[in-house]
Amino acid sequence: MGKFFDVALLFIIVLSIILVMLESVADLNAKYFWEFYIAEWLITFFFTVEYILRIIAINKPKKYIFSFYGIVDLLSTIPTYIAVIFGGHNLLFAIRALRLLRVFRVLKITRYVGESNRLLVALRNSRAKIIVFLFTVFIICIIMGTLMHLVEGEAGGFNNIPISVYWCIVTLTTVGYGDIAPITPLGQAIASFIMITGYGIIAVPTGIVSAEYTRYFNRPAPTNTQVCPNCNESRHLDDAEFCHNCGNKMNLD
Amino acid sequence: MGKFFDVALLFIIVLSIILVMLESVADLNAKYFWEFYIAEWLITFFFTVEYILRIIAINKPKKYIFSFYGIVDLLSTIPTYIAVIFGGHNLLFAIRALRLLRVFRVLKITRYVGESNRLLVALRNSRAKIIVFLFTVFIICIIMGTLMHLVEGEAGGFNNIPISVYWCIVTLTTVGYGDIAPITPLGQAIASFIMITGYGIIAVPTGIVSAEYTRYFNRPAPTNTQVCPNCNESRHLDDAEFCHNCGNKMNLD
Amino acid sequence: MGKFFDVALLFIIVLSIILVMLESVADLNAKYFWEFYIAEWLITFFFTVEYILRIIAINKPKKYIFSFYGIVDLLSTIPTYIAVIFGGHNLLFAIRALRLLRVFRVLKITRYVGESNRLLVALRNSRAKIIVFLFTVFIICIIMGTLMHLVEGEAGGFNNIPISVYWCIVTLTTVGYGDIAPITPLGQAIASFIMITGYGIIAVPTGIVSAEYTRYFNRPAPTNTQVCPNCNESRHLDDAEFCHNCGNKMNLD
Amino acid sequence: MGKFFDVALLFIIVLSIILVMLESVADLNAKYFWEFYIAEWLITFFFTVEYILRIIAINKPKKYIFSFYGIVDLLSTIPTYIAVIFGGHNLLFAIRALRLLRVFRVLKITRYVGESNRLLVALRNSRAKIIVFLFTVFIICIIMGTLMHLVEGEAGGFNNIPISVYWCIVTLTTVGYGDIAPITPLGQAIASFIMITGYGIIAVPTGIVSAEYTRYFNRPAPTNTQVCPNCNESRHLDDAEFCHNCGNKMNLD
Repeated sequence: MGKFFDVALLFIIVLSIILVMLESVADLNAKYFWEFYIAEWLITFFFTVEYILRIIAINKPKKYIFSFYGIVDLLSTIPTYIAVIFGGHNLLFAIRALRLLRVFRVLKITRYVGESNRLLVALRNSRAKIIVFLFTVFIICIIMGTLMHLVEGEAGGFNNIPISVYWCIVTLTTVGYGDIAPITPLGQAIASFIMITGYGIIAVPTGIVSAEYTRYFNRPAPTNTQVCPNCNESRHLDDAEFCHNCGNKMNLD
Repeated sequence: MGKFFDVALLFIIVLSIILVMLESVADLNAKYFWEFYIAEWLITFFFTVEYILRIIAINKPKKYIFSFYGIVDLLSTIPTYIAVIFGGHNLLFAIRALRLLRVFRVLKITRYVGESNRLLVALRNSRAKIIVFLFTVFIICIIMGTLMHLVEGEAGGFNNIPISVYWCIVTLTTVGYGDIAPITPLGQAIASFIMITGYGIIAVPTGIVSAEYTRYFNRPAPTNTQVCPNCNESRHLDDAEFCHNCGNKMNLD
Repeated sequence: MGKFFDVALLFIIVLSIILVMLESVADLNAKYFWEFYIAEWLITFFFTVEYILRIIAINKPKKYIFSFYGIVDLLSTIPTYIAVIFGGHNLLFAIRALRLLRVFRVLKITRYVGESNRLLVALRNSRAKIIVFLFTVFIICIIMGTLMHLVEGEAGGFNNIPISVYWCIVTLTTVGYGDIAPITPLGQAIASFIMITGYGIIAVPTGIVSAEYTRYFNRPAPTNTQVCPNCNESRHLDDAEFCHNCGNKMNLD
Repeated sequence: MGKFFDVALLFIIVLSIILVMLESVADLNAKYFWEFYIAEWLITFFFTVEYILRIIAINKPKKYIFSFYGIVDLLSTIPTYIAVIFGGHNLLFAIRALRLLRVFRVLKITRYVGESNRLLVALRNSRAKIIVFLFTVFIICIIMGTLMHLVEGEAGGFNNIPISVYWCIVTLTTVGYGDIAPITPLGQAIASFIMITGYGIIAVPTGIVSAEYTRYFNRPAPTNTQVCPNCNESRHLDDAEFCHNCGNKMNLD
């Protein structure tokens, strides 16, 4: 029963996101306005019931309401109601923004992803290094962007420093839209230098995460499941004969 | 004899794929229609004979027919015949699709690639993590795409959420076509943030596979399962002739 | 008090960089000319005071003046003064370049980033290898660029070798602006080859840095130099309290 | 003296490559035709003398002539002479190709790069795996390119299978020129899938090289410099007490 509810919920979440996305397509919204309208209210009703049931079922409703999932669940429900209340007003942009908030329903899916926790741990461990790295990239972009603004001038689209910095980020991250591109030989030479630098330093965050992961894997080997019978310590070197925590003799398997 | 047949088969497979590709070029198809037609039937005849011979030669034909290679071999042969049978009808698109199915002949080459098995094992081991990662990327793209649709509006080509999500995938994966690109300062700022984020998280799948590989290599190599008969020490270099722990002569396999 | 000064300084640095960037936007500069002018002089005054105070406060002012931070601090102050002195002349480009020098104020922020030192060490260790690698990439680009110039000619924009080499760098680093793109089938085939090569060799710098990092992490951590006083075993987990080899109590440092 | 000659040679090589590149720029060639002409003959004369001196100085001239550097040295000299001999003819394209051969002079620089050997060893070790990987990428591109040709048709520029495969390579390697881009929703959905796949599998070659490098570094640890006093074998596990090659007791340091 609980499993059926889970699958049904997952199905409705995916459906509701597809609905929000399709509603934004002008043609489809004009054609299927009423179908979208009814489906939207059915989903909102379902999520409202789910939200209320969760509050009733859980021991500490206050903790749930202010938790990550509680806020996500609320955000999944409330925009439809608010859009109705303020529907008569002319705050069109605000309404539209509110309605699009429904897209956060996608975060409801994260409940189903258990594996991601591990990934988050690995990312969190190398967070400080990656932030410093991205910060360095940003400083490089500001300096090189200013240089390109000076060299290229307005001919190649480098009208001001912010847009030159934007171009530099687009280039250094190897995205390369091509809407702004250097046209003077000197500008192209500097751009080449930036690109090759970007190619060289893209290795850094990868190396950090990779090393973090390798370290993570190398520590508790999956074949070494021995646990100290005295203190229940579980991380041991492969050839440990004594527990490194309490000095007890290990039972080797 | 068997080796000659192998090389000939490989040659014909490559030839048949080039043929399918060239046939799709309108100019070449108009000019060399009959040459392509004859070559196609010769190749189909060859593959048909090969398919029948395989069924005859193999002990359990049923198992082969429903195996990966059996289906690939069938798909390499049958489209030409079906295209003839339904040739008189007007199901032009279906016929075209059927004819293009012949491109799956390229999978026949995988028989010649032994090394790939190992790669597949490594990929399979990190499959779960990579799927979770790509899933996370997809959720980020839905949320950021919606945000960009709201910020950029229709001016920059962000007409609806699906196309904004498409743009976000194009940007985060650093492909960057440039057919859709932000033009408002705020949109460009958010795009910069997405790009730098993408630059930072591209490290994650690489780190996973890299760590998986390192772990794979660091484990005792599968061919080196030798254990010292004297002291039972099991970690040995690949070409060790004496046990590094007790100095006993090893039994080389 | 010192902490408050630090935060205030960081705030003013960020503000001054935003100011330099916004000043370069023609519209904003026309509209808010006087606001920018006053803010610029306030910031310059602040930095001048900071620079003089540092010289007074530090024991060896000469060493500071010619250090990295000393030069950065000077570069943050002097351009505003020089621009005033030469303001009457027509050396517009030189003035503009001088004014943009103020963007180097961003380097003042590096004082706040302690973590980056470690990153720099890791990068410095693999510097020689990465330079050789980038050099190899550059040689490939010169040869392939010349080849593309020969194959594509002037139709696809490959007018001369320098621009073809530029295109080759843009392609190999996977930036791909699309302002220059091959249009002949042979050119596209060579481009495909270059791209797949680039895809294959992008792994090299990543691998180098990653391996360097892993090595750095795998070495006994600098804090864990403990050796068992009983059996001299030296590989221990960071928080081991007993020797895993003989069970002796460790002397924790 | 030998060192001065080395530096002078390096200088002339770099100069000669810059010359070849600048000559291809139509404007510069028209303006400085005679300067380029004279410089070209001076460099050719210098390289000719160097080539003859090397043949005279080396013991086995035959081996040198057919070695990699011998061929590079010949290719650096001969195109200028041949261009003169056939200069009167109308084989313009062939002449141009011949003249551009001079760009291979860049390979003369590789003599100065000692470090690259190590890189080449690491690349060679993972060569088989990388080739298999790139081959897999190519098969994916053929199949997905055919699919896109079927889905997009001629509207988005996917006129035939070869060009669709080219587009698929451009996309999967994250280059993304944007000259060809899907415009139908289904095509964009498939393109998104290809991009995310490419993002996921870009990890594979990196992981391979990274693991290869890590293994390379992990094998002969820099602190483990012990050599067997009996057989001079130098690769030993960190805690080896007996030589794994001859069984001799090791002197632990």
